Amino acid sequence: MQELVEQHTGRAFPQKPIEQLWGAVGAVFSSWGNDRAVRYRRLNGISDALGTAVNVQAMVFGNMGEGSATGVAFTRDPSDGTKRFYGEYLENAQGEDVVAGIRTPCPINEEGRTRGTEHLPSLEQTMPKVYRQLLRLAKQLEKHYRDMQDIEFTIQQGRLWLLQTRSGKRTARAAVQIAVDLAKERLLSRDEALLRVDAHELDRLLHPILDPQAERRILGRGLPASPGAAVGAVVFSADVAEERARAGEKVVLVRAETSPDDIHGMHAAEGVLTTRGGMTSHAAVVARGMGKPCIVGCGDARVDDEARVVHFGDEVVREGDRITLDGGTGDVIAGELPTILPELGGAFDVLMGWADKRRRLSVRTNADTPEDARVARSFGAEGIGLCRTEHMFFDPARVLAMREMILASNAAQRENALAKLLPVQRKDFEAIFRAMEGLPVTIRLLDPPLHEFLPHKEQEMREVAAALDTSVAELRARVAELHEFNPMLGHRGCRLGITFPEIYAMQARAIAEAARDVAKAGIRVAPEIMIPLVSHPKELARLRALVEDVVREILAGSRRAALKVGTMIEVPRAALTADAIAESADFFSFGTNDLTQMTYALSRDDAAKFLPDYLESGVLEQDPFVSIDEEGIGALLEMAVERGRHTRPGLKLGLCGEHGGDPASVSFCDRIGLDYVSCSPYRVPIARLAAAQASVARS
Amino acid sequence: MQELVEQHTGRAFPQKPIEQLWGAVGAVFSSWGNDRAVRYRRLNGISDALGTAVNVQAMVFGNMGEGSATGVAFTRDPSDGTKRFYGEYLENAQGEDVVAGIRTPCPINEEGRTRGTEHLPSLEQTMPKVYRQLLRLAKQLEKHYRDMQDIEFTIQQGRLWLLQTRSGKRTARAAVQIAVDLAKERLLSRDEALLRVDAHELDRLLHPILDPQAERRILGRGLPASPGAAVGAVVFSADVAEERARAGEKVVLVRAETSPDDIHGMHAAEGVLTTRGGMTSHAAVVARGMGKPCIVGCGDARVDDEARVVHFGDEVVREGDRITLDGGTGDVIAGELPTILPELGGAFDVLMGWADKRRRLSVRTNADTPEDARVARSFGAEGIGLCRTEHMFFDPARVLAMREMILASNAAQRENALAKLLPVQRKDFEAIFRAMEGLPVTIRLLDPPLHEFLPHKEQEMREVAAALDTSVAELRARVAELHEFNPMLGHRGCRLGITFPEIYAMQARAIAEAARDVAKAGIRVAPEIMIPLVSHPKELARLRALVEDVVREILAGSRRAALKVGTMIEVPRAALTADAIAESADFFSFGTNDLTQMTYALSRDDAAKFLPDYLESGVLEQDPFVSIDEEGIGALLEMAVERGRHTRPGLKLGLCGEHGGDPASVSFCDRIGLDYVSCSPYRVPIARLAAAQASVARS
Repeated sequence: MQELVEQHTGRAFPQKPIEQLWGAVGAVFSSWGNDRAVRYRRLNGISDALGTAVNVQAMVFGNMGEGSATGVAFTRDPSDGTKRFYGEYLENAQGEDVVAGIRTPCPINEEGRTRGTEHLPSLEQTMPKVYRQLLRLAKQLEKHYRDMQDIEFTIQQGRLWLLQTRSGKRTARAAVQIAVDLAKERLLSRDEALLRVDAHELDRLLHPILDPQAERRILGRGLPASPGAAVGAVVFSADVAEERARAGEKVVLVRAETSPDDIHGMHAAEGVLTTRGGMTSHAAVVARGMGKPCIVGCGDARVDDEARVVHFGDEVVREGDRITLDGGTGDVIAGELPTILPELGGAFDVLMGWADKRRRLSVRTNADTPEDARVARSFGAEGIGLCRTEHMFFDPARVLAMREMILASNAAQRENALAKLLPVQRKDFEAIFRAMEGLPVTIRLLDPPLHEFLPHKEQEMREVAAALDTSVAELRARVAELHEFNPMLGHRGCRLGITFPEIYAMQARAIAEAARDVAKAGIRVAPEIMIPLVSHPKELARLRALVEDVVREILAGSRRAALKVGTMIEVPRAALTADAIAESADFFSFGTNDLTQMTYALSRDDAAKFLPDYLESGVLEQDPFVSIDEEGIGALLEMAVERGRHTRPGLKLGLCGEHGGDPASVSFCDRIGLDYVSCSPYRVPIARLAAAQASVARS
Repeated sequence: MQELVEQHTGRAFPQKPIEQLWGAVGAVFSSWGNDRAVRYRRLNGISDALGTAVNVQAMVFGNMGEGSATGVAFTRDPSDGTKRFYGEYLENAQGEDVVAGIRTPCPINEEGRTRGTEHLPSLEQTMPKVYRQLLRLAKQLEKHYRDMQDIEFTIQQGRLWLLQTRSGKRTARAAVQIAVDLAKERLLSRDEALLRVDAHELDRLLHPILDPQAERRILGRGLPASPGAAVGAVVFSADVAEERARAGEKVVLVRAETSPDDIHGMHAAEGVLTTRGGMTSHAAVVARGMGKPCIVGCGDARVDDEARVVHFGDEVVREGDRITLDGGTGDVIAGELPTILPELGGAFDVLMGWADKRRRLSVRTNADTPEDARVARSFGAEGIGLCRTEHMFFDPARVLAMREMILASNAAQRENALAKLLPVQRKDFEAIFRAMEGLPVTIRLLDPPLHEFLPHKEQEMREVAAALDTSVAELRARVAELHEFNPMLGHRGCRLGITFPEIYAMQARAIAEAARDVAKAGIRVAPEIMIPLVSHPKELARLRALVEDVVREILAGSRRAALKVGTMIEVPRAALTADAIAESADFFSFGTNDLTQMTYALSRDDAAKFLPDYLESGVLEQDPFVSIDEEGIGALLEMAVERGRHTRPGLKLGLCGEHGGDPASVSFCDRIGLDYVSCSPYRVPIARLAAAQASVARS
């Protein structure tokens, strides 16, 4: 509303020097109706009781024949930020005509000609003097406001009138370019340039987007869980997704919801659509981690798995039909829309370089595979803050050994199955250590409840029973036995390590052997073993001892491999007793996803039923899974930071929840003194910029 | 071990005047083997490195013919506490003979004769002089130790030797009687008398117990979830339980686990046995609330619902077969054992009277029905701290309207169903208000997720669909839609009130109208409406406004009915933000069951899989569902108390979790300054005594 304030001449508002400029161009034009005035007052917090000011002003007319015109100009190109004067105008017209699109506007200058406007006149050509005046004023305005301007003007019988100027809207790409250029032009300091780019918006630069020109036939709308555009044939199961993708087809996986069983299908698909779940549902989290477009909680859609169709109202989309997902808006679109992959320009690297110099927080990534690790490093990750080992087990080739381990009826059988998993895990870790070349790698030991690894469907049960040489009845009995009412608060995390110490021992061995072997090859390694779901100091003390017993011998004499042991702080009780827990921890990593779920009593997989109501009706101002809830969960984090460092001043502190890629949360982490945040690979640049902005804000 | 210390003459232990007494009877006899010495040292924390002391002592012999004997005596009756000298002896025998039970021991005196010992001599008869000496020494010992003594003696050729004296073991009934008598005899102060009774043990006084003489054939063993004895015919479903009970049969409900659907069956049964679940599983909590014997997590048993049998190893128990549960030990016993209902003597009332004068904490009860309320008042409850309204809906006659409400597809249908529930609820509350006669009644508005009210079995679905004039498919779809991954953290508590305000409005109306009507009848009423599962201050602010809007008009001008609105603090975030929440709360009631589950990430229904391992291996020293975890959950409570009272100094604070009936937790509540605890009716006397003991301990 800045521009409106500038136009307003009532004494309630300060007079700014720029108003001398308005004098230079004649007068200020205003034709506010009463509605607009009321809205303006409300927006500016002026009581209606003050009444409506009466503005008596001369009108200017762009439609007084030849020599009159009206138009819009940008001081730089709002689509890519190039420094060039850019705009459109119409001769003998009023502002509405430009906006309404009835006549094709002409380019403001020769440089601005594009396909389709070659034959049209330009203002530069037809009214060179007025054009030069406009250009000069535009430069003056940009310099005054220190930002790219969006200017509305009218020419009445050869005389130029400015109607409005304001900071222009721009794409993410343009925002980066303009900020960097303005800093190079000394109009902005580097700190100011860093603040000029909305870190959230960077996300758009990192994913392919839909061609904004293409027409959209919208089938439904869900939550924009992971940005980017996905185009492909609809499939309803992870297996079909994998099968068709192997055959070279692009597919979009459509499900009511996803589970860890669907990981291979999500990997294979271009994008994921679910009818249930929220911004941090399984589908959303995994897709963001993969950098894959995803729309969740699309209530307009109803999947019929048996008929292999999805209904959007009356519209039926069958398996194989093409759809397009816009992960940035949540639109589900019929058919195949063209996509664009934005290129990262030099300005992006410059800005990121400034950010890296300015920030105090390190930025790591959540990565489970060497591929993820490499992508994240290319985006500037300085380590892995969360490597989830369970995803490694869901691979169809491995899950059988995992299932054998779970179904083992005695320790010998279990050891036997674990022996099959050991070399596989060792290889995983080796590849990740090599990819990270000595950067710290935080590996979380097995976390999810064991029933997540077992089959639940009849057909799959038969296959697994046959493969494991057991009966379906026995398998079903074990599945039933492992069933939990509230799995999030059940037999998972370090509780598995306490009840089945051989599992964690195997994982520790795999990590240590991989570290030893990579170190032998002359590559530095810095593994950090993270024990999940600790709620009591004794759990960590006991499991640390277990891990150290296994590791000590393997790493003896390996100077290139130094291993740390720490814990995830994700249970409220752990935060409350952080002083005691710190006695056995080299580091804390705040798992704010689960910490939010437990502290808020909010299951992210179930919250879709009421969270939208909460946000809409204003009970909550923000989704606590998107930005850290500072009053509640934040207070707990601060407590844990203080208590942990009280016991161990050098305690390394990080955050590895989804919040690590959210600018507001990154800023919070900076304020409370964490050492690093860790986020999904595609969010690393966002976190880097946000961390720099936080540093600037603190200074 | 006090008595052993007394015998020990090493200089490490203080000499007590009582040793002069030993002198009086000749010498101290000792025949410790090396094992016993080692155990003694360990128990007393004396390092083994100190070596074994060599005791060279004369032996005494009770088997040196006539005039020699050995025996055991109690200064008061250990079974009921009566003040009479009580004991047994054998002529010409050593101690082992008394213990081994090869010969029937003789009564020590004439008073002690019972059926079966009429024909035997008594010590009083055969050695009157020695008997009088023993009696005199016994009195002296009791006076010295200020407690009932258990004395071992040997008579060698007419000379009396005391081998040992110690505070005697006693039943709960005897403990109460002895404490009261000793105080009346001025051997103890009233404060000391209060501390002499283990509050836990009172539980035994309040439930029927199995005849300890009866022989037990044990089928299996589970967790002793709710004390008392239950005898009846095995049934496998709540419906059959109800049916048979109506026909006058005593039944024991046996299930893998129970759910709210089973409530009517639990009410109907004498006791409950489950094969799954822990001390705070649904079955355990509900059974304790009902004061009904219950054994849970009986891993030895396997229920086959279809065959209607339960296997205990190779043993098969069929529907209708009799079994007996010992809720105090966890024993499942074949057949029907005789039970005894202990009578509460005058001493109990005296002790409780002293406790009531001494305690600062109020004691309320958790009661959902007028019957519960009356039982609790008879046990001394000073109000209802938790009246769960959902249990009222599970009644088969009402659940249909509840289901209609849940399945309503629009607000009008929902209002229609709620209109049917309103008069029913009003009647419930009226009856409870009348039973409590002006004592405070805290009513929790609807808390559980709605799917708990819907049928899940095929047959039941068909019945419900027919009754509600809908299709099974539609019903099944709604059930599926309401399914939650982690229902504890799902769409429940005040979230129902936010998304379906008409439900809470109906409940508030029912409460207010009941209060108005009872007040009109001249009876005072003090309802307190409690909003559950609040995690954010705005939830409470909004729902308080909703409730007040409904209530204001109804209660206008009713001087006898003052209504308060407060919240349950059961979500960690609520404790953390208690200062803001207190702005809309007249009271806080700590729901430590859920608070423990969330703060500890510990689902009580699932914890049975690993909690036993934790307790056995010493990772945890106690089950946090039994006694409040002071370091974790306790720290959170203290924080909430401080923050809540900071905002509102007069804030009333209570606790209504299962912990309200646990002496250690009651003591904690006293220390942190709560106003009251609330527990199941049968635990009210325990809480009263524990509260008094806490007061004594603090002074």
